[in-house]
Amino acid sequence: MEREYSSAVLENAVTALSRLPGIGRKTALRLALHLLRRPEDEADAIGKAIVELRHSIRYCSVCHNICESEVCDICSSPARSAATVCVVETVRDVMSIEATGQYRGLYHVLGGVISPIDGIGPDQLEMASLARRIESDEAVEEVILATSPTVEGDTTNYYIYRMLSRLPRKVRLTQLARGVAVGNDIEYTDEATLARSIVNRTPFEI
Amino acid sequence: MEREYSSAVLENAVTALSRLPGIGRKTALRLALHLLRRPEDEADAIGKAIVELRHSIRYCSVCHNICESEVCDICSSPARSAATVCVVETVRDVMSIEATGQYRGLYHVLGGVISPIDGIGPDQLEMASLARRIESDEAVEEVILATSPTVEGDTTNYYIYRMLSRLPRKVRLTQLARGVAVGNDIEYTDEATLARSIVNRTPFEI
Repeated sequence: MEREYSSAVLENAVTALSRLPGIGRKTALRLALHLLRRPEDEADAIGKAIVELRHSIRYCSVCHNICESEVCDICSSPARSAATVCVVETVRDVMSIEATGQYRGLYHVLGGVISPIDGIGPDQLEMASLARRIESDEAVEEVILATSPTVEGDTTNYYIYRMLSRLPRKVRLTQLARGVAVGNDIEYTDEATLARSIVNRTPFEI
Repeated sequence: MEREYSSAVLENAVTALSRLPGIGRKTALRLALHLLRRPEDEADAIGKAIVELRHSIRYCSVCHNICESEVCDICSSPARSAATVCVVETVRDVMSIEATGQYRGLYHVLGGVISPIDGIGPDQLEMASLARRIESDEAVEEVILATSPTVEGDTTNYYIYRMLSRLPRKVRLTQLARGVAVGNDIEYTDEATLARSIVNRTPFEI
């Protein structure tokens, strides 16, 4: 195929940028031409930040959250309670829960959920390390399941429940409350969620 | 302000990526986390392509199109006719016209259009260089105005018309045909365009 653009460097940049998710060749070209109009150090900063990102980021050896050292800031913080471990799918879920400011325990990032259709089984996830961690860390008293409320999330939760119940050490197993979302109309809440919210109703708070 | 993410490197990458047009912090985070999941050489390739792009791309000293040498491939090609110079706003317009395969002449990239509201006058554009080029290059016989059919484009065209008419050397001045767009319904064509398409009607072609 003939080159699409007159410049090989531009062609190369557009091809590289269009590998990013949600960015097609047209958007990649727009981004590249924008970078050309910006000062050289700004384009440099973006390029180097991407290279640096991939080189410097590591995964915490305890909870598998992203970090820049062997153990992440959350796992190594004395301010966090080691009694609860919140099991989440991804690094973004850690960020979302941290943003609420409501949780002071630790995390365990699975790296996804069990999804046979995508070829993801327990072996592709941080399952074995979760079992080892719960078994060996005497401080853990409770495991909170915070996977997404989907079929895959529920399957993953059930797998963890079975896995942990086979361990000699017993911990409390809880999951995120399911119910109507704050700010959503009852009218537009799906039946399964509404049914849950009635069954799991809580004392009225002022 | 406290850092938004637990990792300074991630924070840095998200901030850098969110400087790109149309990319907010949420999308930047998605892109950064995507890069973390990809092989290291892929992230490297993207980062280096951006740095390389800004370092290597230059602007043609004749037509101001992007290139990697002093004079661009189009200006230096013996296959292109030096008799016509097509005046366009941006590098993307060169790409659009090249993609039609209908034009074998040269270009002149203004770098924008006259737009007082944005503080862009003739001095911010490649106007003086256009006048010098037309004056000094004996080969040029025709200048095609290919700015956008907007108020700013028309203003720019009028400015070029006045500028070129003051030059001792006379060249033919033409502009892109205006009329109904191929594939568009007459019903939805705006009145100004439809009026033009009637006034400038052409012999019927089979």
